[in-house]
Amino acid sequence: MLNFDFHNPTRILFGENQIEHLAQLVPARARVLVLYGGGSIRANGTYDAVMAALDGRTIFEFGGIEPNPSYETLVEAIAVVKRENIDFLLAVGGGSVIDGTKFVAAGSLLDADPWTILEQRAKNVSAALPFGAVLTLPATGSEMNSGSVITKQATQEKFAFMSRLVFPQFAILDPTRTYTLPARQVGNGIVDAFVHIMEQYMTVPADAKVQDRFAEGLLQTLVEEGPRALAEPDNYAVRANLMWTATLALNGLIGAGVPQDWSTHMIGHELTALYGLDHAQTLALVLPAMLRERRDAKRAKLLQYAARVWGLRDGDEDARIEAAIARTEDFFRAVGVGTRFADYGLGKDVVPAVVAALEAHGMTNLGESGEVTLNVSRNVLERCT
Amino acid sequence: MLNFDFHNPTRILFGENQIEHLAQLVPARARVLVLYGGGSIRANGTYDAVMAALDGRTIFEFGGIEPNPSYETLVEAIAVVKRENIDFLLAVGGGSVIDGTKFVAAGSLLDADPWTILEQRAKNVSAALPFGAVLTLPATGSEMNSGSVITKQATQEKFAFMSRLVFPQFAILDPTRTYTLPARQVGNGIVDAFVHIMEQYMTVPADAKVQDRFAEGLLQTLVEEGPRALAEPDNYAVRANLMWTATLALNGLIGAGVPQDWSTHMIGHELTALYGLDHAQTLALVLPAMLRERRDAKRAKLLQYAARVWGLRDGDEDARIEAAIARTEDFFRAVGVGTRFADYGLGKDVVPAVVAALEAHGMTNLGESGEVTLNVSRNVLERCT
Repeated sequence: MLNFDFHNPTRILFGENQIEHLAQLVPARARVLVLYGGGSIRANGTYDAVMAALDGRTIFEFGGIEPNPSYETLVEAIAVVKRENIDFLLAVGGGSVIDGTKFVAAGSLLDADPWTILEQRAKNVSAALPFGAVLTLPATGSEMNSGSVITKQATQEKFAFMSRLVFPQFAILDPTRTYTLPARQVGNGIVDAFVHIMEQYMTVPADAKVQDRFAEGLLQTLVEEGPRALAEPDNYAVRANLMWTATLALNGLIGAGVPQDWSTHMIGHELTALYGLDHAQTLALVLPAMLRERRDAKRAKLLQYAARVWGLRDGDEDARIEAAIARTEDFFRAVGVGTRFADYGLGKDVVPAVVAALEAHGMTNLGESGEVTLNVSRNVLERCT
Repeated sequence: MLNFDFHNPTRILFGENQIEHLAQLVPARARVLVLYGGGSIRANGTYDAVMAALDGRTIFEFGGIEPNPSYETLVEAIAVVKRENIDFLLAVGGGSVIDGTKFVAAGSLLDADPWTILEQRAKNVSAALPFGAVLTLPATGSEMNSGSVITKQATQEKFAFMSRLVFPQFAILDPTRTYTLPARQVGNGIVDAFVHIMEQYMTVPADAKVQDRFAEGLLQTLVEEGPRALAEPDNYAVRANLMWTATLALNGLIGAGVPQDWSTHMIGHELTALYGLDHAQTLALVLPAMLRERRDAKRAKLLQYAARVWGLRDGDEDARIEAAIARTEDFFRAVGVGTRFADYGLGKDVVPAVVAALEAHGMTNLGESGEVTLNVSRNVLERCT
């Protein structure tokens, strides 16, 4: 096990009707900015439940935070915070809204262009507004971590920052609030959580038995519950297991003390920036190809994954590895997310474009060991056709 | 899954040489009281490492905190805190020292006899001194939770309290600091962690797939690494896995959203109070007997436990359950902890005495459903002979 520093102070209130507890969680005299996305929370009752629980506070609203939340949108929210002397933020939505709220929390207290937070990877962040989250889409894990990914539309740059100062104070996870999600968002969320786990698990052995088994337990749960969530949208137990799994997939616990990869994400970010694919679509494309390309480097963990997640324990080792990767692809497709360029109307011509973007962004030594060079990334992308 | 409220703000620094980070973790101007136990930390170098890292602070010491830490000892520490205007506590030791430090942290800021903290189950605790922990014995999980068990020697009462105010700010877990532990303490710690997990896992199904699999992963890790820790005391990977497992066994995570039992602990506390058995010895006695006595109520989870922890998936269900319980007993004995009264020189006469103590303390409806009455406890104790 590698040395590690684990700290996660976010409080989780999980279950039906937990939104009512906002009345105790948000300071009674707060001037609150409620941030949300495209407005689905108004249609499904979440907005009304939140506003009822916040009764008595001075409330402002900022809607319209988009998927892949943009600097351009969020600086408008920062302007509202400054103009209205907001002292508490409440994100109501999925990972994009929560990521955006983290940027607003830090950017509102910064005496500089907030884009410098991304450029300096939060080294210039010394304070942030307190905030909480009401999660409506299990996927990114942003509700219980200190990371945020922001896109600058003007330059098509998509960067991440992390800061201990932007852990949500609390996150409310009510599985019933996810019943009305479109199937595409549910499937994307499942793939997103799955690949988050894989980026922390599918590397090389590190004598970290607990982290491995926790990761495998989360993967098995996604495999079992993912297709059921699509077939039975209002099955509470299924939605609850998915929601808690997606949070634990990226709250720092399974990644503490183990090598991590994240090359699939880096390549995926370029596909989103260049072609507008959903984040999870890019992950479903790249991960199986990456595992096939790097099957030798990841051999020991691939065999463990085959055995413990997919029950593949007998027969030729290479056949077991290939079967485990094929099952992974089947699983992604079973939750509605395609695993080949053709599923998204793309062809081989994307390969040089993505490789050029990786080079331009310095993504030339990715993976747990830095051995995912541009050549390896090119091979991976060619396997996506 | 049941609704839950999970919050664990303790920061964990895990690995070799992490004690050096005390220099950053403890405020530079603090007046620090270092609390410890019987002095083994002086023999094994931990004391010197801690003092070196604290260089520059004003340091006071309080040694001699005993196993099953006592009110009588700890009020002396509280007197030191008040007399010397201590503003930071550092526990260096195992669960007893950390539990005791929690009591000192809360008791030092209380305008009343600190024993009232136990009597009022911490309802009268509104502040506590900040404190950290350097863990030397993986066992109780106290280093990353908000619970504490204190004994009043004068009355032989052993009570617990929990308060959000007594989470350690940080805990340092250096597996190399556990190499020199006596085998008895290692074995006890393994059993203690194992039974902590079982009290949160071995109840009735609650559609909590993540919690179940995390618990099973921790149990499997103890089964694999426990005997190895005794056979290879300075195997870093083994000690690291044990240490992280014991912490996660009782940090609130696997118990969030599921029914809990704790009847084995309640009966065990009486055995310790009456006969001076080590805490873990009482757990190794009671747990297998409890599982046999309540095999019908716990049937579904016992079958799951048999399959997933012990690989017992074939044949008659009752035979699988009995085999899983027998394997559990074998495991306890393999780490040196006896599972029958005779192993501790006790006989059948303890049964009525323990039942009387349970009755005197109101322990008449224990277990996940309250169905562990005095009659059930009597049957359990008779099975320990």
